[in-house]
Amino acid sequence: MSPGEKKTTRYRVRVGYVDTDQAGVVHHSTYLRYLEAARVEYLRTHGIDYKKFEIEGRSALPVVEVAMRYKLPARFDEELEIETWVGVVTRARLRFDCRVWRGTELLTESEITLACVRMPEGALQSMPPEILRACGE
Amino acid sequence: MSPGEKKTTRYRVRVGYVDTDQAGVVHHSTYLRYLEAARVEYLRTHGIDYKKFEIEGRSALPVVEVAMRYKLPARFDEELEIETWVGVVTRARLRFDCRVWRGTELLTESEITLACVRMPEGALQSMPPEILRACGE
Amino acid sequence: MSPGEKKTTRYRVRVGYVDTDQAGVVHHSTYLRYLEAARVEYLRTHGIDYKKFEIEGRSALPVVEVAMRYKLPARFDEELEIETWVGVVTRARLRFDCRVWRGTELLTESEITLACVRMPEGALQSMPPEILRACGE
Amino acid sequence: MSPGEKKTTRYRVRVGYVDTDQAGVVHHSTYLRYLEAARVEYLRTHGIDYKKFEIEGRSALPVVEVAMRYKLPARFDEELEIETWVGVVTRARLRFDCRVWRGTELLTESEITLACVRMPEGALQSMPPEILRACGE
Repeated sequence: MSPGEKKTTRYRVRVGYVDTDQAGVVHHSTYLRYLEAARVEYLRTHGIDYKKFEIEGRSALPVVEVAMRYKLPARFDEELEIETWVGVVTRARLRFDCRVWRGTELLTESEITLACVRMPEGALQSMPPEILRACGE
Repeated sequence: MSPGEKKTTRYRVRVGYVDTDQAGVVHHSTYLRYLEAARVEYLRTHGIDYKKFEIEGRSALPVVEVAMRYKLPARFDEELEIETWVGVVTRARLRFDCRVWRGTELLTESEITLACVRMPEGALQSMPPEILRACGE
Repeated sequence: MSPGEKKTTRYRVRVGYVDTDQAGVVHHSTYLRYLEAARVEYLRTHGIDYKKFEIEGRSALPVVEVAMRYKLPARFDEELEIETWVGVVTRARLRFDCRVWRGTELLTESEITLACVRMPEGALQSMPPEILRACGE
Repeated sequence: MSPGEKKTTRYRVRVGYVDTDQAGVVHHSTYLRYLEAARVEYLRTHGIDYKKFEIEGRSALPVVEVAMRYKLPARFDEELEIETWVGVVTRARLRFDCRVWRGTELLTESEITLACVRMPEGALQSMPPEILRACGE
């Protein structure tokens, strides 16, 4: 759960009006959109253009597991920072660990686990070497 | 703008918590989701299974124009009714006209215009005969 | 994880076009919307009108933890069934356990944990007696 | 429809995976989220902090009319630019005109009309002087 010496990225997002609900806070489902954008930028930073990866590799990295704890709510127009690192990477699984921050306040903690599938059939396959290289320590 | 003698359908939807924003009302973008579901049901009622249409016809009906007027807001947990009919159908365009009702109160009025494209290239083509039959008067 | 003798509800949802992504399957974030609607119906079935609960009780039940495993993808226009029951209820927490089914195929399994807060401040408080009665065994 | 000498802003957005649908393009409803973010930035650029405006002014600027034409589809990971200017501003209405660009390609054109309401009742009121100053020519 601690990024330690691992490569981490920080992705900034501004909370939109549509991201809120009638409780006046960001809806819990919205964070999955923020985290997805942060993962795409993580991969880009580490040499993987995910769009090309899907097209040229005829592969995809679908989410197979989500775990998220919500500690403090975010509100409209706040600037948040998504800290992302790879918690676990094996031939079968790639787990991104994420913390959403508002300044020094920790809002959510999560682990998002991806598998690798061959497209368009969707059959499970091993993580390709370029993913292992980009996401390993 | 009046459904007159045309075939209309009525589709019911219950407003979800996620559909609201911090103003305590349904966000204006949410209605496009409701209207899309209502169009799929309109087509089903008139003999078109839109999923099969896309797969077997190698075609799609993308939205090319949206016009919507918002008169009254909807709120969480309300049951709404989407009245849908075909306002215009030609070989190039199919325009669905929709009213969102809460009981006898008219909340929104809209016209959603679709074109027909060949997939996966996305090139424009004429409306297929089955659409003309299903959506004509 | 097994509903056993507990009260369960089954909520049906039809997959919308907007619910899909370019991989041709339901986006992982979409299920949180389905599950939320299923929880509102669970509460209604067991005597709690959640809208009234928020207004009259000056309280809310925000999501504080999400855990979801995705086993099989859902696709456009499929009819899904959300099986929902209360896995754990204490004075501090209410955990809904959910399975999303397509016929006899299990698509996702999840546990969604809610806390109870006083509104509009958002301070944590004990689960009200009516929630304990409605959601206890 | 032409921004002419008026003040315009350009807001950049990167298309997310969740923004796409199974046709492989950005879903038509997604643009309303992009445009909303662009309007908030337009207002900020011209001296209005919309969050403060809502809280301190006990007012809101709800969308009362949407008109959008979709000319070309956007795809995952593309960088888009939202050109925004005020097309019409009166004491009753504020109309934002927007073009979504991918480089030199025009993807959508739209007009989004806002009214001003007193919150929390939602009663219509005149545009406040600070809005007229910020959004007038």
